[in-house]
Amino acid sequence: MPDLSALRANGERLWRHLMALGEIGETARGGSNRQALTDEDREGRELFLSWARSAGCTVRTDAIGNLFVRRPGRRDLPPVLTGSHLDTQPTGGKFDGILGVLGGLEVIETLNDADVATDHPIDVVVWTNEEGARFDTAMMGSAVWSGAMSIEDACALADRAGTSVGRELERLGYRGAEPARAFPVAAAFELHIEQGPVLEDAGITIGIVTGVQHMSRHRIVVDGQECHAGPTPMNLRRDPVMALAGFLPRIYAVADDHAPEGRVTIGFVDLRPGSPNTVPGKLEMTLDVRHPRTDHYDTMVRECEAAVEEACAGLGLPVSQRRIWHAPGVDFAPECIDAVRRAVRITGHDARELVSGAGHDSCNVARVAPVSMIFVPCRDGISHNEAEWATPEHCAAGADVLLHAMLERAGA
Amino acid sequence: MPDLSALRANGERLWRHLMALGEIGETARGGSNRQALTDEDREGRELFLSWARSAGCTVRTDAIGNLFVRRPGRRDLPPVLTGSHLDTQPTGGKFDGILGVLGGLEVIETLNDADVATDHPIDVVVWTNEEGARFDTAMMGSAVWSGAMSIEDACALADRAGTSVGRELERLGYRGAEPARAFPVAAAFELHIEQGPVLEDAGITIGIVTGVQHMSRHRIVVDGQECHAGPTPMNLRRDPVMALAGFLPRIYAVADDHAPEGRVTIGFVDLRPGSPNTVPGKLEMTLDVRHPRTDHYDTMVRECEAAVEEACAGLGLPVSQRRIWHAPGVDFAPECIDAVRRAVRITGHDARELVSGAGHDSCNVARVAPVSMIFVPCRDGISHNEAEWATPEHCAAGADVLLHAMLERAGA
Repeated sequence: MPDLSALRANGERLWRHLMALGEIGETARGGSNRQALTDEDREGRELFLSWARSAGCTVRTDAIGNLFVRRPGRRDLPPVLTGSHLDTQPTGGKFDGILGVLGGLEVIETLNDADVATDHPIDVVVWTNEEGARFDTAMMGSAVWSGAMSIEDACALADRAGTSVGRELERLGYRGAEPARAFPVAAAFELHIEQGPVLEDAGITIGIVTGVQHMSRHRIVVDGQECHAGPTPMNLRRDPVMALAGFLPRIYAVADDHAPEGRVTIGFVDLRPGSPNTVPGKLEMTLDVRHPRTDHYDTMVRECEAAVEEACAGLGLPVSQRRIWHAPGVDFAPECIDAVRRAVRITGHDARELVSGAGHDSCNVARVAPVSMIFVPCRDGISHNEAEWATPEHCAAGADVLLHAMLERAGA
Repeated sequence: MPDLSALRANGERLWRHLMALGEIGETARGGSNRQALTDEDREGRELFLSWARSAGCTVRTDAIGNLFVRRPGRRDLPPVLTGSHLDTQPTGGKFDGILGVLGGLEVIETLNDADVATDHPIDVVVWTNEEGARFDTAMMGSAVWSGAMSIEDACALADRAGTSVGRELERLGYRGAEPARAFPVAAAFELHIEQGPVLEDAGITIGIVTGVQHMSRHRIVVDGQECHAGPTPMNLRRDPVMALAGFLPRIYAVADDHAPEGRVTIGFVDLRPGSPNTVPGKLEMTLDVRHPRTDHYDTMVRECEAAVEEACAGLGLPVSQRRIWHAPGVDFAPECIDAVRRAVRITGHDARELVSGAGHDSCNVARVAPVSMIFVPCRDGISHNEAEWATPEHCAAGADVLLHAMLERAGA
């Protein structure tokens, strides 16, 4: 068996692919807008598939639109899987997800260039609708594949215009012949930008990701009574924004009480009817709660719910609170974490271990296969933003580590 | 001269007109949606005009779409004016504005029935876009007519879909030949529901309105930095909702400090990009501030602005605050208030004096002519709401008082 430890990814090619894909749905300020199952999303996927076919890969599409491209192995064994997603937030960047897919492609091309065969096939996957921005369920494609969500529920999800996932899959030709169901996977890895500031602050190139924090999304609806802004005295109003004024500071205080790891995000607020001179009759909002530790996460959710409940009760306003999405914390597979640790040693990049603050498709993959992740820094820790950026060197370093972790599990 | 003191409005006819007009743009829960310069608004206006023509009136349309219907006088004198508006909030009621227009029509029909001639002509006006819901300037038509706003600025106002007032006036045929400019008016009155709970609570039928409180609308924009909800520690975020949590309770405290007359309303909040798992990069909202007394109103605005400024400064977030609309408090004309007082005595309805909490077209009319208003109770003080309601008896009583106040000024 040849010594492959000197093998490295072609960072220049990887960068070229990243930039070319980022041009699809490019925004005015240099980000990307390829929301799931839009024409832009299709265009991005098809560009990737054209590269994969040129690299000799076969392509399969499953019934929820997940794409699997395969470099065959020497033996009839389950594949070693990598990949991520190509869809973005409405004002997203060029790296979140894309690096994981194109990093996987780069592993295949590097092996092709060096004429290295592996025992296990190598699969690169593009999961459908990881972002959950257009269709409000993050990591949807991997959830269906891993059995965490039914394909019927996924296909019924609709965007704000009422268009469903199922209809878009048909329209785009992505309702594939393969069942959207997990197949045996020997090991899985996902390369991703950190989406946080930890690695950059510490000046470290590689994050060895040991797991993912607990996270959930909550829908809060407070009912009030529409009335005219002028003549109604404050004490006779049923104003849901008055309730918001009561519980909003307390929600942020909950995050403070569980600092530095506790996180709360209010990303969406809607007032009905939304007229400047009408006291709103209804407030609807989302709340995102995260913490790496189960006990802290549970306490945070309880405390936020109590804050909302008490503020609304104090004003006599009916409120409904529903956890519409929940991803329990995940511990990644020790053998995959070890494979990444060894790949770090082989490649010589500096690294530290950390827990992911964001959810990833790997959380779903973890339900059915051994998996871990590799992070590289992103500028100012920013993602879900047009300013999202990673350097060519960091992207290449991540692909190097991915390459060697996969090589170990795939048997070169 | 005959004794006209026994003359009364035909409450049944007035009610029939109110209900018929309320069927246009009727909502599922019995309210009305006839936002300014929509097809529904036109349909409502045309129904009113057909009734006015049947009552023998002539019709003039000015360049901003204000409609004036006239019952001629015996002499070549300026008219006594009444009227209000027919446009509604998106989920508005059947009385706000409509009662003032149809109450004016009822005055004309009552005079016709009794064959009473007046020295001054009687004009009933339908002002364009009083609500400011679709096109964000309340009392627009009367503002242009009175010289408070240029017709160019009014025509350039656009709704959220980008359609302008000017384009809609053209489309609907309401860019009239008459200049949108005040003509001499002998006296003006406006009949309106109170839109507050004071009369109903006191069990009183007629409000003699002596003026209108100070009011203004403010646009607040806080800039933040979009980032991913998961991996970004709270202390590294630039989250405009965190600023909102800081200043929102203080804004409500300002109203408390100036209770019971101080009022603040947050009717519109928008977060960009509005994704549940992205910390918003921008918050935009409106704030409506009202108080009858100048010193209190000025202090409230200063205190609200300081609360917003300080909360944003504390987080290092840029903020812009702009007063996008301001209606200074108005004292109505003593001779018109007196005419209403005398009409109350003639008709025998119980009454009390009050200051309007809402703005009305009469505030603009007050710039160029002597004017006052007449209020009748509305159920639970609710308006700008599908549940808005006034009884047939109260509507008729209001028309009675309007009739006699106008008769006095018009010289029967």
